[in-house]
Amino acid sequence: MNRPTKQQLDSCRAALVEALGSDALKSDPDALSDYGRDESDLGTTPADLVVLPRTTAEVSRVLKIAREHRVPVTPCGARSGKSGGSMPVHGGIVLTLERMNAIKEISTEDLVAVVEPGVVTGDLMKAVEAKGLFYPPDPNSWGWCTLGGNIAENAGGPRALKYGVTREYVLGMEWVMPDGEVLRVGRRTIKGVAGYDLVGLLVGSEGTLGIATEITLQLLPLPREVQTALLVFSDVRQAARAVSAILAAGVLPRTLELMDDLAVKAVDGKGFNFPPETGACVLAEVDGNVPEAVFGELARLGEIAEQHGAKETWLAQDEGQREKLWAARRTVSIALRGLAKHKLSEDLVVPRSRIPEMIDRCKAIGQALGLTVATYGHAGDGNLHANILFESADERPKVDEALRQMAVVAIELGGTITGEHGIGVAKKDLLPLEQAPAVLALQRKLKQVFDPEGFMNPGKFLPD
Amino acid sequence: MNRPTKQQLDSCRAALVEALGSDALKSDPDALSDYGRDESDLGTTPADLVVLPRTTAEVSRVLKIAREHRVPVTPCGARSGKSGGSMPVHGGIVLTLERMNAIKEISTEDLVAVVEPGVVTGDLMKAVEAKGLFYPPDPNSWGWCTLGGNIAENAGGPRALKYGVTREYVLGMEWVMPDGEVLRVGRRTIKGVAGYDLVGLLVGSEGTLGIATEITLQLLPLPREVQTALLVFSDVRQAARAVSAILAAGVLPRTLELMDDLAVKAVDGKGFNFPPETGACVLAEVDGNVPEAVFGELARLGEIAEQHGAKETWLAQDEGQREKLWAARRTVSIALRGLAKHKLSEDLVVPRSRIPEMIDRCKAIGQALGLTVATYGHAGDGNLHANILFESADERPKVDEALRQMAVVAIELGGTITGEHGIGVAKKDLLPLEQAPAVLALQRKLKQVFDPEGFMNPGKFLPD
Repeated sequence: MNRPTKQQLDSCRAALVEALGSDALKSDPDALSDYGRDESDLGTTPADLVVLPRTTAEVSRVLKIAREHRVPVTPCGARSGKSGGSMPVHGGIVLTLERMNAIKEISTEDLVAVVEPGVVTGDLMKAVEAKGLFYPPDPNSWGWCTLGGNIAENAGGPRALKYGVTREYVLGMEWVMPDGEVLRVGRRTIKGVAGYDLVGLLVGSEGTLGIATEITLQLLPLPREVQTALLVFSDVRQAARAVSAILAAGVLPRTLELMDDLAVKAVDGKGFNFPPETGACVLAEVDGNVPEAVFGELARLGEIAEQHGAKETWLAQDEGQREKLWAARRTVSIALRGLAKHKLSEDLVVPRSRIPEMIDRCKAIGQALGLTVATYGHAGDGNLHANILFESADERPKVDEALRQMAVVAIELGGTITGEHGIGVAKKDLLPLEQAPAVLALQRKLKQVFDPEGFMNPGKFLPD
Repeated sequence: MNRPTKQQLDSCRAALVEALGSDALKSDPDALSDYGRDESDLGTTPADLVVLPRTTAEVSRVLKIAREHRVPVTPCGARSGKSGGSMPVHGGIVLTLERMNAIKEISTEDLVAVVEPGVVTGDLMKAVEAKGLFYPPDPNSWGWCTLGGNIAENAGGPRALKYGVTREYVLGMEWVMPDGEVLRVGRRTIKGVAGYDLVGLLVGSEGTLGIATEITLQLLPLPREVQTALLVFSDVRQAARAVSAILAAGVLPRTLELMDDLAVKAVDGKGFNFPPETGACVLAEVDGNVPEAVFGELARLGEIAEQHGAKETWLAQDEGQREKLWAARRTVSIALRGLAKHKLSEDLVVPRSRIPEMIDRCKAIGQALGLTVATYGHAGDGNLHANILFESADERPKVDEALRQMAVVAIELGGTITGEHGIGVAKKDLLPLEQAPAVLALQRKLKQVFDPEGFMNPGKFLPD
């Protein structure tokens, strides 16, 4: 779809004001710019119009009007994404779901929650925990990202190791098709196989197939006991081998988060002091209902880690210590920016057994190109965030080459180029490295079923 | 697609013999009839030809030849399905995957298995358990059903309560499109969000979108401890309320299987003697790694059950007792046939809190129509198999009316008409009760992307 003309935009704006009222639109330059970027390092592509619908009917109305005026629509949540998925790269409307932020229901009996897409993930977590329930997916930005965005990107997080990703918790949705038609897909029950798994297709579709306006999520009983330990290593390769050994021994913690020397250095002393000479560490967390059993698993995990070179196992003694440890982990991405002027991050996944090799090869690629590579991430499920730190924009071609080489290695090792951030704009050019032309062609055909005119989040995901 | 003509079939047969050799075909009347039925009560629709490919290339070849000669193809596994999904209702070729039955890999390091579609589910379970690993999905027919069939139907089973259904374990597939093109979808890693979730769309597509020829499955570490108890009640409504109470209390057993008085009567004394005056029972199983913790959860569950009217809790003392108890549960479906000449079964699901109400209303529907209704199933996840027993084929219209009324009630209570058996032929006419015309239309369009000519498993699932 082409960038809309001024005339198209003007008439579209007028129709939107008439339909939704002027307080449902933003068009000051600051807002247009704010809604033109996310948490990727892809810069800003300003929106032409920002629309803030309050109801499903309004979302539907916006899509109908946009289509009528041939103006592209890019949906967004909190713009916390890392792949440019919510950037209006072809201009037009950014449709934000931020005003649709009601938690409509939390059912202890049925173990489900029904929410609007603009609910902040962390708000739902806290609300269900207050009722003894558990919503496991915990993307790093849970404090401000929204469930609608989590669904668009099929967000993961540390606990995916034991509990899976967003996809596993979406039972049903109210879904607005690109032409404005409102459908109900999925269900409220845990099981159900009536028809094609439309929910499966729509979760992770990166805003290219329509918009979720109501989401029914599965909940779990809240584990009554959680224990957290920091395993300290002198070297990241050693730590990676310990992670593999822990999993191969049949222990299934809920997180196994790895940080290399640079990642540790970036956050050390800011709220949490790492033991001196920490060359790498693993943040391990075990949960369950019986304290002795949870402690038993954690002890077993610690033993295996020590057999594989852990110098020290540091146990969080209370919720305060635990929170400090996690805060350190959560701020790695931001803190790494403090170490260099520029940072670009990968979101590679390899089969768990290949983690040590992947880390070796990422470091080697960096070395060969004279770049600094910091590695951290969800080592337990093979999802590594390799970050390249660099000082000058001139180095960018070299950095892109490194990212490309890392992607090739991940695929060669049986992995994928994105574990949880999505393709969006960031990895559009890399996707053909992983997926064959026939697979890409099939996805193009599916996109056409939903959005024949291509005005829903154009320019994303599928290579042109 | 129309039924093929004799001429089309003859030329298709000749081409298949030339391509695959005559030992890849069966056309004796017994075989054509055998491959024309499954475990539903829908009778037999004989195949015109049975083809037994040995490789992906041969599967692709068969589809190309069939398409060229305009002969429909119905894929099948072990024909253990309950909705007629593998019945060649428009005649033509039945393509059986039974010769593709190799377990290609079991990786302890990566926690994955790679299998061909004809592998019997129970064979994989045993093979991975021998390595300390666990493949949780356990459809009732695990002793003879195949993984390819499980994927086509997105099979469930008792353990779905804690571990989810087949869908949750399929990471990647080699997939032959209806036109014979071979694709790779998904991946080998636990996480991955590159592109649309094609695996999500294909699992549960009931053989209408193509054929899986290689499947990469996620495995878990095998829980080191399993304990099993039988909770005895005088009445099924009481038992259902106890199930709800157990779940609401935050206990998450791996199974909570319900059997009403008729189901108990059908299997009593055949290997396992139920306590006298068992009016209903719940088979509860808890797993974990620490014996004390597992026993603790089971004890807690037993207490809640007793508070809700359980007369007795009977604990399996060893693997032998456990196996007897499960054998009783697994044979309910077959044993119920012994109580009456005919039997038709539902596969309804309701939100967990509505289980008692659903059972009440199923019994009431039966009573009003003068029919005997036996209820059993996976009460923990709201998936009930309501069975109608009847003596004379004359009663069939009344039985159909009862099934329809039960489906309406399940939907009214927020549920679905099929939890694990699929739509197939059996529930094709009921699907519009649950899904709106726009949702059905969307699925038809998706089907067309994969199979524009409609020769892949025609006559199934979507109403005409």
